[in-house]
Amino acid sequence: MAEFCEEKSPETKVSKGLTSVGTVEEADATDRVKETYGDIKTTLGIDFVPNMYRAIAKDPSYLDVTWKKIKSIMKARGKLDRKTQDIIALTVSIMSGCEYCINVYTTAVKHAGLDDETMLEIYEIIDLYTGLNRLNIAMQTKPDDKPWHGCGG
Amino acid sequence: MAEFCEEKSPETKVSKGLTSVGTVEEADATDRVKETYGDIKTTLGIDFVPNMYRAIAKDPSYLDVTWKKIKSIMKARGKLDRKTQDIIALTVSIMSGCEYCINVYTTAVKHAGLDDETMLEIYEIIDLYTGLNRLNIAMQTKPDDKPWHGCGG
Amino acid sequence: MAEFCEEKSPETKVSKGLTSVGTVEEADATDRVKETYGDIKTTLGIDFVPNMYRAIAKDPSYLDVTWKKIKSIMKARGKLDRKTQDIIALTVSIMSGCEYCINVYTTAVKHAGLDDETMLEIYEIIDLYTGLNRLNIAMQTKPDDKPWHGCGG
Amino acid sequence: MAEFCEEKSPETKVSKGLTSVGTVEEADATDRVKETYGDIKTTLGIDFVPNMYRAIAKDPSYLDVTWKKIKSIMKARGKLDRKTQDIIALTVSIMSGCEYCINVYTTAVKHAGLDDETMLEIYEIIDLYTGLNRLNIAMQTKPDDKPWHGCGG
Amino acid sequence: MAEFCEEKSPETKVSKGLTSVGTVEEADATDRVKETYGDIKTTLGIDFVPNMYRAIAKDPSYLDVTWKKIKSIMKARGKLDRKTQDIIALTVSIMSGCEYCINVYTTAVKHAGLDDETMLEIYEIIDLYTGLNRLNIAMQTKPDDKPWHGCGG
Amino acid sequence: MAEFCEEKSPETKVSKGLTSVGTVEEADATDRVKETYGDIKTTLGIDFVPNMYRAIAKDPSYLDVTWKKIKSIMKARGKLDRKTQDIIALTVSIMSGCEYCINVYTTAVKHAGLDDETMLEIYEIIDLYTGLNRLNIAMQTKPDDKPWHGCGG
Repeated sequence: MAEFCEEKSPETKVSKGLTSVGTVEEADATDRVKETYGDIKTTLGIDFVPNMYRAIAKDPSYLDVTWKKIKSIMKARGKLDRKTQDIIALTVSIMSGCEYCINVYTTAVKHAGLDDETMLEIYEIIDLYTGLNRLNIAMQTKPDDKPWHGCGG
Repeated sequence: MAEFCEEKSPETKVSKGLTSVGTVEEADATDRVKETYGDIKTTLGIDFVPNMYRAIAKDPSYLDVTWKKIKSIMKARGKLDRKTQDIIALTVSIMSGCEYCINVYTTAVKHAGLDDETMLEIYEIIDLYTGLNRLNIAMQTKPDDKPWHGCGG
Repeated sequence: MAEFCEEKSPETKVSKGLTSVGTVEEADATDRVKETYGDIKTTLGIDFVPNMYRAIAKDPSYLDVTWKKIKSIMKARGKLDRKTQDIIALTVSIMSGCEYCINVYTTAVKHAGLDDETMLEIYEIIDLYTGLNRLNIAMQTKPDDKPWHGCGG
Repeated sequence: MAEFCEEKSPETKVSKGLTSVGTVEEADATDRVKETYGDIKTTLGIDFVPNMYRAIAKDPSYLDVTWKKIKSIMKARGKLDRKTQDIIALTVSIMSGCEYCINVYTTAVKHAGLDDETMLEIYEIIDLYTGLNRLNIAMQTKPDDKPWHGCGG
Repeated sequence: MAEFCEEKSPETKVSKGLTSVGTVEEADATDRVKETYGDIKTTLGIDFVPNMYRAIAKDPSYLDVTWKKIKSIMKARGKLDRKTQDIIALTVSIMSGCEYCINVYTTAVKHAGLDDETMLEIYEIIDLYTGLNRLNIAMQTKPDDKPWHGCGG
Repeated sequence: MAEFCEEKSPETKVSKGLTSVGTVEEADATDRVKETYGDIKTTLGIDFVPNMYRAIAKDPSYLDVTWKKIKSIMKARGKLDRKTQDIIALTVSIMSGCEYCINVYTTAVKHAGLDDETMLEIYEIIDLYTGLNRLNIAMQTKPDDKPWHGCGG
């Protein structure tokens, strides 16, 4: 007999699908979700709705604010071009260690025209600074009296 | 009396300076270290040697391979321009949570001409994808059957 | 003379204020920003605009989508009560290692009525599972054939 | 001939089982380990010993202190209810990126009665604050002069 | 008027001392806490109780299981010597980015006799592998068909 | 029609091999890469070139500086013995959560003669301090007035 898990019934079945909270299929989408699904496909230039969006559609208002935030941030506005935006997104995904996201963004930047040589250059900088970052955390390096400008910091 | 720390003498003084392993001052640098110090100042266009380099100079061969790796990776070679390299280095530093490094690279990219608006755009993308990365880790999102190309992944 | 940093002028002054991208003061806020500032103060029940919001106000559309996402997610909708939401936010901030955020959320949950004993209970669970999580990553533990339900996983 | 790995014999076979250090099967458990195995099954209300516990049983004193710490922290003591404890454990596992642990705790909280809607609410808060945490680390936001209480911090 | 923070009274004072949950001073310790405080000082060979232990003493049973776990794991048992144990603890603290802990363990290993040269060697390995780890996460490197044994992995 | 991904052609094929940037096969290696491949095999005492090295060989100068840094740091120089170096490398890989690297280093330290009992001891210290590190980050523990020396910090 369970001492502090007693409220649980061990026969519970937990099936997991494409995500741990299920998905809203395109055929089942209505109203605002259906509309957002359409906008996602048009905006991204694809003919399906990715698993991530189908999962969060289970809370239509969350899908709504998330998609609006994505569109607001990622659409080109002058300062950063699209390729640089994607490189930042890929770098963040690698640092977060999110397999799904690394897959999506590796495809994205290759699709945007980055060849293997350029991708390796990105990885080299990530290798270099991840290492130097941790070195400075280890050494508890004090700030320099005068500013300097990277090239190894 | 200490049970498993007994070999330690509690009166030991540990003073910490600019880094936890001390530094090699410019005036004390000789041979290869002196030469590398000179190359660092020339290459970075500054008139002092940053704390990080002065610390690792305590192992001259480590200073040597580190500086060679930095120069090899960061000097422009055609695919990524200098500004993009610095943006990746800043992004990595932010993801690592290294205060010293964020300081250096924030200065570096501002120095390279990025205004506050552009920097905020970088931060926005970091906010967005750090959040979505963790969401996909949480949901254990399965890979999509077909490729897609970011803009929120 | 700088080899690969030559485009930089070393005399650049970079002053840092409340954030690395500056802030929009309340007195200078107009239109949508002014309106959002008012909504933030009313919603949070405070008489000032926190530094974080004043920084992101430099991109009014980012302030807008961010505040809308926060309101959409944090306002009680039935399943999770406010206290549980704040506990999750505090836990996330601790795991991210964000000093500013730990400060805000430690204040928030204490303000919401959590006493030191309850907070220590939260920290105990964080200590326990952060340790066990890393242990399982270290041991590369394979999934169990049958489901179980925590109490140490 | 290996220069700095010479002491190694390349023919070494390393087989990996359920964990990288093997497991103590229930049938082989004696004394204190056997007793703890029994307590684990009774306490958790399951009829098997999860892989994690079978691995650490290889050091009986470690199994002992670990299980005692788990029981001491996770059994209800008044301030936090069981569901809130599990939500914190799940949040920590997601932030640590431990696949095994996310599996166990996703099952645990579903088993405890959380439906998909509630789980998505948890994920939404994790998405939101992981993003805002990193934003504040990026902006190096200074502490506010006056306290505020979350709802986006 | 606060919309979703209304239960909060903004005049709440939250003072923070040595830790966010306060401490139990040595003079106020009774029974099991007093006994554990004594054991901590004897075992560590110091004449005061560090802040960390004084904080968790607010939950005597947590102090008890934590201190028992620490003693069980850290006391020499034959396989790893004390210095290697401390080096692992320092490495973990650096990877976690815990300032308080890096301070304690930097002092600990220096106190145990490690000179600056040895510490720099530790940092070099941390720099090297943190970088290569992230590189392999970035490249999504597939497992090798045959085993190999580090020296750069 | 894609709004902000329009430059992308959805029919792009992205095949992924052993790494996301491909590899340089041994048979195709020339000049400096061929020479480094030979040195890697000799130094590590294996008869093949691991995937990681075959990937970074696509940028010969990066392979060169990386391999030189690895050799410089990992070859025994007096202060840390080879086993301790490998234990640090394994610990770092576990903290980074790099599956490929954990595999390589788990094999490496077992190969170097560490038995399951010793490995479990390493994991125990990682469990313990990862937990205590996060606890101190959570509690925002202030530095102690006097130094102490680990055994739980």
